[in-house]
Amino acid sequence: MLPEPIKNLVDQLAQLPSIGPRQAIRLAFHIKNRGDSAVEQLASSIAGLAKLKTCPSCFLVHESGNSAGLCHICDNPQRDPKLVAVVEKETDLISLERTQRYGGRYLILGELKKDGSLSIEQKARLASIKDAEEIILGISPTTFGDLNVAFINQELKNSAKKITRLGRGLPTGGEIEFADDETLGSALENRN
Amino acid sequence: MLPEPIKNLVDQLAQLPSIGPRQAIRLAFHIKNRGDSAVEQLASSIAGLAKLKTCPSCFLVHESGNSAGLCHICDNPQRDPKLVAVVEKETDLISLERTQRYGGRYLILGELKKDGSLSIEQKARLASIKDAEEIILGISPTTFGDLNVAFINQELKNSAKKITRLGRGLPTGGEIEFADDETLGSALENRN
Repeated sequence: MLPEPIKNLVDQLAQLPSIGPRQAIRLAFHIKNRGDSAVEQLASSIAGLAKLKTCPSCFLVHESGNSAGLCHICDNPQRDPKLVAVVEKETDLISLERTQRYGGRYLILGELKKDGSLSIEQKARLASIKDAEEIILGISPTTFGDLNVAFINQELKNSAKKITRLGRGLPTGGEIEFADDETLGSALENRN
Repeated sequence: MLPEPIKNLVDQLAQLPSIGPRQAIRLAFHIKNRGDSAVEQLASSIAGLAKLKTCPSCFLVHESGNSAGLCHICDNPQRDPKLVAVVEKETDLISLERTQRYGGRYLILGELKKDGSLSIEQKARLASIKDAEEIILGISPTTFGDLNVAFINQELKNSAKKITRLGRGLPTGGEIEFADDETLGSALENRN
């Protein structure tokens, strides 16, 4: 029933995270109905992603011009190469950078599996960290995240003097009354 | 902080229905990280939408080859031109077609405004219906939909002998115990 070009697009949209098949159909028609110039603009924006490079050191997608293909963080001699934050996604890196309180490097692992296990690619990325002073695991403190951390720790056991995780406690602006027991317990332990 | 090509795409994705700015950022990086051939495939699928025509009679997006640009429904002499179902979206038309119990034509209005009012384009589309035997308003029985129907009825008052709405009642497979009062009331009235 769906025209072929719509079906093609639906198949691809439905593969994206958090887009279901029904939403994919709605999106495909919506995109078409915005008119041909909007269609072309979106297509060329997506095609424009090909210009981006992936940093061979931290795997951040970027557009820096240096010859080694390094991103602006790995290329910055002021950033401590002995301090590495391991994160899942680019957006996690962006959030940490936004704090302006971190002076080390990063390693982006890419989407983690819910069963905690690591892909061959992810293991290879972790193996690239050598002789670090400290590795900070910037993995979300969820049940899945805790499982992932256990697997990541195994890979990193000889890679750094110290492996830490981001501190747990009350979120700024959060009220004690509404904090769950686990969070409040962490806040007690990490009191300062 | 976002590379320019990512930012471009995020701006466009965030304009799509039910995609928020955070999801747009995640999607943009995800699309890039699937690799350049996947990027190109998605871009060309979207560009492929330009090939689709919009039926000048019912406004369905389609790929039929006839010279008048009509879709396969409007071009089918077996479909009763005196019976017209007015729907909001292509997906509503597809749902009605899937029942295989409808032999009339359609008119797609496009996204309806929450305040019920109709755009100039939507009024023009409604004005194209003339001398129908029956117009079926295939508008969802929601609060917003009811409001839209009031405005649509005004536009159609001289266009058909009869204007009806899709029947309300218990959904097939639905349990009486869990039906809301409004639905159960409609089911009583529409008993058969």
